[in-house]
Amino acid sequence: MTISVAVSGASGYAGGEVLRLLAGHPNVEIGAITAHSNAGSRLGELQPHLHALADRVLVDTTVENLTGHDVVFLALPHGASAEIAAQLPDDTLVIDAGADHRLTDPAAWEKFYGSPHAGSWPYGLPELPGHRELLRGAKRIAVPGCYPTSSLLALTPGFAAGLLEPDDVVIVAASGTSGAGKAAKPHLLGSEVMGGMSPYGVGGGHRHTPEIEQGLSAAAGEQVSISFTPTLAPMARGILTTATAKVRPGVDAAALRNAWERAYGEESFVRVLPEGQWPATKMVVGSNYAALQLAFDPHAGRVIVSAVIDNLTKGTAGGAIQSMNIALGLPEGAGLTQQGVAP
Amino acid sequence: MTISVAVSGASGYAGGEVLRLLAGHPNVEIGAITAHSNAGSRLGELQPHLHALADRVLVDTTVENLTGHDVVFLALPHGASAEIAAQLPDDTLVIDAGADHRLTDPAAWEKFYGSPHAGSWPYGLPELPGHRELLRGAKRIAVPGCYPTSSLLALTPGFAAGLLEPDDVVIVAASGTSGAGKAAKPHLLGSEVMGGMSPYGVGGGHRHTPEIEQGLSAAAGEQVSISFTPTLAPMARGILTTATAKVRPGVDAAALRNAWERAYGEESFVRVLPEGQWPATKMVVGSNYAALQLAFDPHAGRVIVSAVIDNLTKGTAGGAIQSMNIALGLPEGAGLTQQGVAP
Amino acid sequence: MTISVAVSGASGYAGGEVLRLLAGHPNVEIGAITAHSNAGSRLGELQPHLHALADRVLVDTTVENLTGHDVVFLALPHGASAEIAAQLPDDTLVIDAGADHRLTDPAAWEKFYGSPHAGSWPYGLPELPGHRELLRGAKRIAVPGCYPTSSLLALTPGFAAGLLEPDDVVIVAASGTSGAGKAAKPHLLGSEVMGGMSPYGVGGGHRHTPEIEQGLSAAAGEQVSISFTPTLAPMARGILTTATAKVRPGVDAAALRNAWERAYGEESFVRVLPEGQWPATKMVVGSNYAALQLAFDPHAGRVIVSAVIDNLTKGTAGGAIQSMNIALGLPEGAGLTQQGVAP
Amino acid sequence: MTISVAVSGASGYAGGEVLRLLAGHPNVEIGAITAHSNAGSRLGELQPHLHALADRVLVDTTVENLTGHDVVFLALPHGASAEIAAQLPDDTLVIDAGADHRLTDPAAWEKFYGSPHAGSWPYGLPELPGHRELLRGAKRIAVPGCYPTSSLLALTPGFAAGLLEPDDVVIVAASGTSGAGKAAKPHLLGSEVMGGMSPYGVGGGHRHTPEIEQGLSAAAGEQVSISFTPTLAPMARGILTTATAKVRPGVDAAALRNAWERAYGEESFVRVLPEGQWPATKMVVGSNYAALQLAFDPHAGRVIVSAVIDNLTKGTAGGAIQSMNIALGLPEGAGLTQQGVAP
Repeated sequence: MTISVAVSGASGYAGGEVLRLLAGHPNVEIGAITAHSNAGSRLGELQPHLHALADRVLVDTTVENLTGHDVVFLALPHGASAEIAAQLPDDTLVIDAGADHRLTDPAAWEKFYGSPHAGSWPYGLPELPGHRELLRGAKRIAVPGCYPTSSLLALTPGFAAGLLEPDDVVIVAASGTSGAGKAAKPHLLGSEVMGGMSPYGVGGGHRHTPEIEQGLSAAAGEQVSISFTPTLAPMARGILTTATAKVRPGVDAAALRNAWERAYGEESFVRVLPEGQWPATKMVVGSNYAALQLAFDPHAGRVIVSAVIDNLTKGTAGGAIQSMNIALGLPEGAGLTQQGVAP
Repeated sequence: MTISVAVSGASGYAGGEVLRLLAGHPNVEIGAITAHSNAGSRLGELQPHLHALADRVLVDTTVENLTGHDVVFLALPHGASAEIAAQLPDDTLVIDAGADHRLTDPAAWEKFYGSPHAGSWPYGLPELPGHRELLRGAKRIAVPGCYPTSSLLALTPGFAAGLLEPDDVVIVAASGTSGAGKAAKPHLLGSEVMGGMSPYGVGGGHRHTPEIEQGLSAAAGEQVSISFTPTLAPMARGILTTATAKVRPGVDAAALRNAWERAYGEESFVRVLPEGQWPATKMVVGSNYAALQLAFDPHAGRVIVSAVIDNLTKGTAGGAIQSMNIALGLPEGAGLTQQGVAP
Repeated sequence: MTISVAVSGASGYAGGEVLRLLAGHPNVEIGAITAHSNAGSRLGELQPHLHALADRVLVDTTVENLTGHDVVFLALPHGASAEIAAQLPDDTLVIDAGADHRLTDPAAWEKFYGSPHAGSWPYGLPELPGHRELLRGAKRIAVPGCYPTSSLLALTPGFAAGLLEPDDVVIVAASGTSGAGKAAKPHLLGSEVMGGMSPYGVGGGHRHTPEIEQGLSAAAGEQVSISFTPTLAPMARGILTTATAKVRPGVDAAALRNAWERAYGEESFVRVLPEGQWPATKMVVGSNYAALQLAFDPHAGRVIVSAVIDNLTKGTAGGAIQSMNIALGLPEGAGLTQQGVAP
Repeated sequence: MTISVAVSGASGYAGGEVLRLLAGHPNVEIGAITAHSNAGSRLGELQPHLHALADRVLVDTTVENLTGHDVVFLALPHGASAEIAAQLPDDTLVIDAGADHRLTDPAAWEKFYGSPHAGSWPYGLPELPGHRELLRGAKRIAVPGCYPTSSLLALTPGFAAGLLEPDDVVIVAASGTSGAGKAAKPHLLGSEVMGGMSPYGVGGGHRHTPEIEQGLSAAAGEQVSISFTPTLAPMARGILTTATAKVRPGVDAAALRNAWERAYGEESFVRVLPEGQWPATKMVVGSNYAALQLAFDPHAGRVIVSAVIDNLTKGTAGGAIQSMNIALGLPEGAGLTQQGVAP
């Protein structure tokens, strides 16, 4: 079975990663590759690491150019993807790597994005309870944000099992700079970021906050509120998420470990590491894997969970292709790898 | 006024930073430079960045070699410094950059270090309430750990002002690799650490946990308990601390900001940045400065404080020399700089 | 067709990369995974990025454990591989990623390695003139060194076409730290290498010098002598080689470009980039690709060639698997990718 | 003695480094701090590492604002500095960190910069033969480029002593990204530069080529021609220069070493390291030091010299202040340090 796929936003980091993975997907034929200001350029100028596609020429991101494929990936600024998606055929599988269709609550969307809500689509994180089923045969899929992917994988098992208190969740995450995109800004220059770390969006303002709370609340069956602080780390790829929540009275280390291991025991892309081994982002660079470890701190009455993903792979393009595979009935791991590129 | 100074542990990162700063101190004459296995080597082989001292030869770390100086810096493994300090003259100013004399509670020491408690000395963090006075004329000074320095500077103002709840403090910090020392271990190889992040000592096991709780509890006047997670970042120097605590009912953003600005308004090495500007570790590389910013997150009912220091400078050697200056009645900033080396 | 493969030296960087690629090879079944001091450990402890093989246990590197496979990869210190290889069956394909069988001249071997010469095997760089043919059906293959791979790909076309003077070749290369191996040495600590560069083995002493001269001389049909200076760059992977040679009288830019493009026009893993685009090591991280660009500097009468490879992939494990595929009659690119992992 | 100093181009990397060093200069009072588009901003927003000057406000870069100081530093794009310098009083010491007044040959200037030649000023590299004398009492000083500083320090002793052939000089240098400036360009993003290396300006096109040839030719007393290839390394600061030239017949290792050691034996900021020790850029980060080592390769008939500097310090701002000190009769090292910030 060969499916034709179009990729928009191909000059950015998310679009580039989608193309990198699709180039190795056994069932995919890459059709239109589109961009906005870079239309007309050779892909080799913009994504020089994609040697097999170097001579492909980018075309404009238009409904015309995207129509006629089995699958369309949208790697566009929020707002743009909703507008284009609305004009694509209903029987085309549209996978939105942007934010437009992630939030179910219009009020939350409007508060954090300041624009009308485009509605919500099936959420492409198959390892969450019940989500894989929703993706089978889906024609519209919202790809989770990178921080929500790691945060939800980190804490969902505990909330789903009723082991955690819904308030006082604290999440501090460190992301590689590719998460900030390819637009040239002074504070993202190599000279500025190499050898240093800094926080941003502190105090609840980050747009991923409502997305994380939405997922945790769904698992908990009650409203979960979090304090989320993202930081920028001197690396191109990877997210290390440190998530901690208070455990309910009587919950012990064994119960916690059991809940996490049960949740992911059957998964091929999420693993709780053996006791004593802690995750490192380099375990998952370029791979679709998420590695977790947890510890119970009785002194603080908290569970601390560390989770690592590659923000561009499992956190964006890899997760998107995993969801595509499920939607189309392909092997879930087609075109994806479990192995990280290390050292 | 010229004082003679001996430096032990000169082949390590802490000892090297002490020497880097002392080489530029207007009142210091560097006497014995000692090491253990590296005794007999030229300093230029071990610390090739210290050009002015390159031809100095290291001698053994013995009481004999250290005696006869006005000041002795101990940059030794814990245990070793207490043993040597006990044999140095009472009228010599002994500054211990190691852990032996930081904790006041013998039980806490024995729980985390598993050895007999050597007693506690004046704690060399002059910006904490009342600490500067204790350092004036002191003959024994315990240099704080690097994580405690940034964590205590981050949260003390709020506890001293009674604005924060004593439980549910969460601290997640990212440190440069020099904090892990110069001993060659596989997981600290450049190939392993470049381009990645990882947590360590998760779940309350890190030895800096009781030291942070000791300082915060003293400021709060009641027992403060924390959840502390350190992470290793791909940079040689710097610590970014993200510290968050629940605020007491009725406390607002203005009250919080006011407490922090009052606490550090007169300080020359600690500054709350203007509103809207967030700290970055590269602001303080090679400098004795600590830069802070805070935000009130009403949604989570928490204050989030970001603090940055250079773990080797303000976090170790710079703080040690600042304390030395106070103890000896020298200008507090002698031999230190406020400026970071950036980009 | 499925072949059984054993990998020795599995705890090092070269062995780890061989396993990473073999795990995705459609025709390979991974048999014995061996190590020396790490025998008995789970692979997941030593190569935590190889999730699919995490629970495999390493066995001793013995002839017994390696015998009985179709292919045996040797990623061992020089000396060790020759000793083991001599005892493996003649009909087993033995691929030596070490140095023992690269040099044809016993005197050169003894001068640079100070031990008896083990003899030479077909040289696994199929893009060199006539080499692909030698690899077909071979039962013993010597994997080129990483510096020689990039240096020979950079300059061979000019020498093979008779356009370059055989003396005054100057090569300066920058390598990622993984090229220095996984043994913990102080100068390879992250704290030491991050943010800095340094040369090593300056003045002709590097063991790759005779290997590069051997290949260039074979292409030129006369003795070529080089000045080679390797440097250590603050990155885990990748080699950037800057190679320059004097051009023969009357040779112009067009003739040079034509020679290089002709040499690699049919190759799937080596490419001369379009004029004006220069290589960057991140184009090839994790890929088996080599990217080149050249410029004629009439002022200096020299051609300057820049070449990039991933030292662990095309420079070691990828090149080894490419040669294995050729030897066994498999598709040359099986298990390999052209795409780099970027950014 | 206190001198008033104005600094233009204060929002860039060169201007920031001038200010960092001037803030610690015992004889300097910092007057006007000027910028172009950033006039009106607090310095703390643009150079957040300069804590002591954080509240200073930048004014426009105009002759009016710069006039009335004893010394004016120009850290401006080429063209701009010549225009302003021409309008400043003759008795003001004007130090141009830009390129406008470096080249003595109008034809060379016009070929590489494509604009009219502004004339040449005393060249601020006091360690070159006879240059220190030219700087004493000078009122106009041209600060050398960063690549020329390291290249000239590397090779001048050999040419001045008549030991080297004037043709076939090959220089390959790796620079930190701060050398490329603070203007936001996509290829300089952290995501692009971290973890990789790339060449640029290959084939003689780099504007520093004529400047290096000018200096070497003056030392040699005949025309020296070079092949120069700069590369971009994943570090914020530092230059590692690998320079090689053919030695004249009969010249041996001792003669070479002797020439270099004699040339710098009296210098306080340039040192030939002890035999066997090779330079590393981290030896000199933030310092005004240049560290060198050389090796004679009889096989290639070449001397290879490695030189390291901090491109922003000895390579720009430090060298500029060293020259200022000489011009004004201050201690040559005032406000400068020999110590690097390492690790």
